Amino acid sequence: MTGFSPECGKNRSESSAVDLSSFGIREGISETIISTGLESPNAAPIGIIVKGGRTFVRLFKGTHTWANVSKEKHLASNIVYDPLLFVRSTFFDLEPSEFDYVPVHGLSFPILKTASAWVVFECTDLKNTDHALVADLTPIKAGFNEANWKSLPVPNRGFNAVLEATVHATRYQLTGEEKYLELIRHYESLASKCGGENEKKAMKLLYEVLGL
Amino acid sequence: MTGFSPECGKNRSESSAVDLSSFGIREGISETIISTGLESPNAAPIGIIVKGGRTFVRLFKGTHTWANVSKEKHLASNIVYDPLLFVRSTFFDLEPSEFDYVPVHGLSFPILKTASAWVVFECTDLKNTDHALVADLTPIKAGFNEANWKSLPVPNRGFNAVLEATVHATRYQLTGEEKYLELIRHYESLASKCGGENEKKAMKLLYEVLGL
Repeated sequence: MTGFSPECGKNRSESSAVDLSSFGIREGISETIISTGLESPNAAPIGIIVKGGRTFVRLFKGTHTWANVSKEKHLASNIVYDPLLFVRSTFFDLEPSEFDYVPVHGLSFPILKTASAWVVFECTDLKNTDHALVADLTPIKAGFNEANWKSLPVPNRGFNAVLEATVHATRYQLTGEEKYLELIRHYESLASKCGGENEKKAMKLLYEVLGL
Repeated sequence: MTGFSPECGKNRSESSAVDLSSFGIREGISETIISTGLESPNAAPIGIIVKGGRTFVRLFKGTHTWANVSKEKHLASNIVYDPLLFVRSTFFDLEPSEFDYVPVHGLSFPILKTASAWVVFECTDLKNTDHALVADLTPIKAGFNEANWKSLPVPNRGFNAVLEATVHATRYQLTGEEKYLELIRHYESLASKCGGENEKKAMKLLYEVLGL
């Protein structure tokens, strides 16, 4: 067994007739890393929401993702199983070298090199609320990146704990409320108990960011 | 894109030289469903622990899994992404029709039909503690089940919440402590907000089990 490869014979397979469900983007909120920005690529963890057959995203005003989507009307959803990348892309700019580019609608669109799969969406029917932009999403191109499938993403409570801690860390930064710190400490202990090396590195970085 | 298939050309691929890491069983605790029982198959969610290069499992005394492993010295770790199956196998006996059988060491060993992948382990160096049996695990045979790969397991906080709620539900049943109910209610709300139909069904069943 040399590794886990979702498609044979191609290093990266692409499809323009996108069946979202085969990419695991399903009813509920899929936690992916969104890449945007034709001139200066950017990445941030953002959920793709599917509800009642509608696929959409909610982007907070003032973020790079919000600015890029407002202007360019496209985003890529990168499916990633690396807890450290979730934390890094939440709090830091990724390096330009971490992006690859795919041709979509005459554009050269940034995706993450280490994504296991990616879907580029066109954003339509943009609606601004007080704090956010809500955009409907139409998938226009997608691909698996076989080279990144080294193992199955087996459920791991440590990995899950990093996701939760990251969500609560952004809320803590916004509000400074102590209850978020308590939750973060709870999830740090879970990541340490159930996670591997990458979960521990991710939590260490998150603690550094928060000055803990 | 017709679906997500980890191996081509075979409905089920099997391997006897098992590279555990390609099955996603890695440092930390991998949450899988363990099947055991040559005469009467049984399944229960149990973590496979990898720590300092050692792979082992901790089984609580008095459970079916504990009895079967004590006697038969084998177990199968099934990689499953169905939240309802985690809850069902925690609190109920699965149907005999939900198991398939693979030949291992001259035995016909039960695995879960709906597993995305499975690894059969030999259990060695069994050690009893007051409440549990600890056994080292040597992988002897493994396989992917391509027919069960319909989509990528994209991180979903609702799915993760069902796992957490299930862990806390077993603790609540053991201790009756109110703090576990609070955690379960927190995760029910997360499963409802971020999960899909299967997460909601799983939490509904868990609430029924607890009489909530």
